Amino acid sequence: MSELTRLGISINSDLLEKFDKILDEKGYVNRSEAFRDLIRNFIIETEWGSNEVAVGVLTIVYNHHIHELTEKLNNLQHQHTDLINSTLHVHLDHDNCLEAIVLRGKSSDIKNLAEKLIATKGVKHGKLTKTTTGKDI
Amino acid sequence: MSELTRLGISINSDLLEKFDKILDEKGYVNRSEAFRDLIRNFIIETEWGSNEVAVGVLTIVYNHHIHELTEKLNNLQHQHTDLINSTLHVHLDHDNCLEAIVLRGKSSDIKNLAEKLIATKGVKHGKLTKTTTGKDI
Amino acid sequence: MSELTRLGISINSDLLEKFDKILDEKGYVNRSEAFRDLIRNFIIETEWGSNEVAVGVLTIVYNHHIHELTEKLNNLQHQHTDLINSTLHVHLDHDNCLEAIVLRGKSSDIKNLAEKLIATKGVKHGKLTKTTTGKDI
Amino acid sequence: MSELTRLGISINSDLLEKFDKILDEKGYVNRSEAFRDLIRNFIIETEWGSNEVAVGVLTIVYNHHIHELTEKLNNLQHQHTDLINSTLHVHLDHDNCLEAIVLRGKSSDIKNLAEKLIATKGVKHGKLTKTTTGKDI
Repeated sequence: MSELTRLGISINSDLLEKFDKILDEKGYVNRSEAFRDLIRNFIIETEWGSNEVAVGVLTIVYNHHIHELTEKLNNLQHQHTDLINSTLHVHLDHDNCLEAIVLRGKSSDIKNLAEKLIATKGVKHGKLTKTTTGKDI
Repeated sequence: MSELTRLGISINSDLLEKFDKILDEKGYVNRSEAFRDLIRNFIIETEWGSNEVAVGVLTIVYNHHIHELTEKLNNLQHQHTDLINSTLHVHLDHDNCLEAIVLRGKSSDIKNLAEKLIATKGVKHGKLTKTTTGKDI
Repeated sequence: MSELTRLGISINSDLLEKFDKILDEKGYVNRSEAFRDLIRNFIIETEWGSNEVAVGVLTIVYNHHIHELTEKLNNLQHQHTDLINSTLHVHLDHDNCLEAIVLRGKSSDIKNLAEKLIATKGVKHGKLTKTTTGKDI
Repeated sequence: MSELTRLGISINSDLLEKFDKILDEKGYVNRSEAFRDLIRNFIIETEWGSNEVAVGVLTIVYNHHIHELTEKLNNLQHQHTDLINSTLHVHLDHDNCLEAIVLRGKSSDIKNLAEKLIATKGVKHGKLTKTTTGKDI
């Protein structure tokens, strides 16, 4: 972790009051922490636009009774072991499974694999969360 | 406009460097301005979750040749003159029109009217931009 | 407008029931219209990822009392008359203005200009709505 | 799983052509599957607006060297064992951890807990993916 820098910023008191009220509701104990969160979100969003190394979590929900679906999803994941770090599997009920798949690699590769998994017949819902390696951020 | 307050925040130098690089690309001349933009976005998003007075801009694209569509959209807008401030109409080509409709009122009322206009048969695309009255922000 | 094609699709009755209930709430009179809306949204989102000709509406809210701000925003817009189709200006209150700016051109050019206008000091909030020329959609 | 219903919908051939092209790029083998995905996304978004039982996956990235952070995150999770189904922990590098936390419960409860975990000092990035129990969908 790099050293801390101290910054001064100017802000209208009305604006600050509104900001503080929301931070309180969301459970922030510290204004600096909220500023850093806003900055990090902003950076991560921008970085996913370029094609740097990123981390993503793909969530899919599917019915494991559908013929050969589990096998297909497994095969697709095994063809990309370079991208997939690990997978959490949750049995939602008798029929439905959820998987949270942690992916790491170039953002375009992550997106492509996520699209293929989501497009697989029988996957009811899929969504990719774009996050960060945590490095230098 | 309320008076300016001066704040100090601490931030890692790595994080700050990344932030500054993006600000430069996006054309910010001033770091404080970027901080204020992040804060305002955050406040506006939260305010639309509660039901306060807000401002929105609804964009719709439609084919004006569709029977009675212009009339229907007009009627709907006239039933809500309390919500609608003004409408910009652009002739995109021989068939297609774009309207940018400025709405002001309780956020739930704005959303309801926007949904109805978007759901009207013949409206090809519609999207509501959630913004602010600009007061105290 | 191209000719209509008739499609058959299979869908679980549970899923359809939920879908119909929401359509009713949102004011759709027609299930086909809702399907077409979903498809168009999906296409427009994808097209903004590639760099085709698109249409966008930029909403900005700013305080016109800020020194030279109106002039700066005006100048920026005049440097890009090839991109800007027209602008609706609303006086929100004594201090605040809203502009809805209709842009047409390559999606990357639209995004760049929108970023610059949003980054201008004194612009309180800015958001770009990505829409379509309406052609072939 | 409920029985399948067969639906007919009308769609412009231009629109359908664009749709099919994108489905092909995304790896869909079947147009009906893409329609169902669009419908399910639409339903899940709407359901998160009401307060029904839902499933979410919260992704957080944090530096485990920060004093007492791991403990705080752990404590918060243990206070809500009714909401938390399971957590996948990934060691991103020497400093950074990623957790994918599967949550199930009323959508407002899931959001509240997610906000608190994200607001915890030292959590660099957090994002909640809203998904579904998979029931009747």
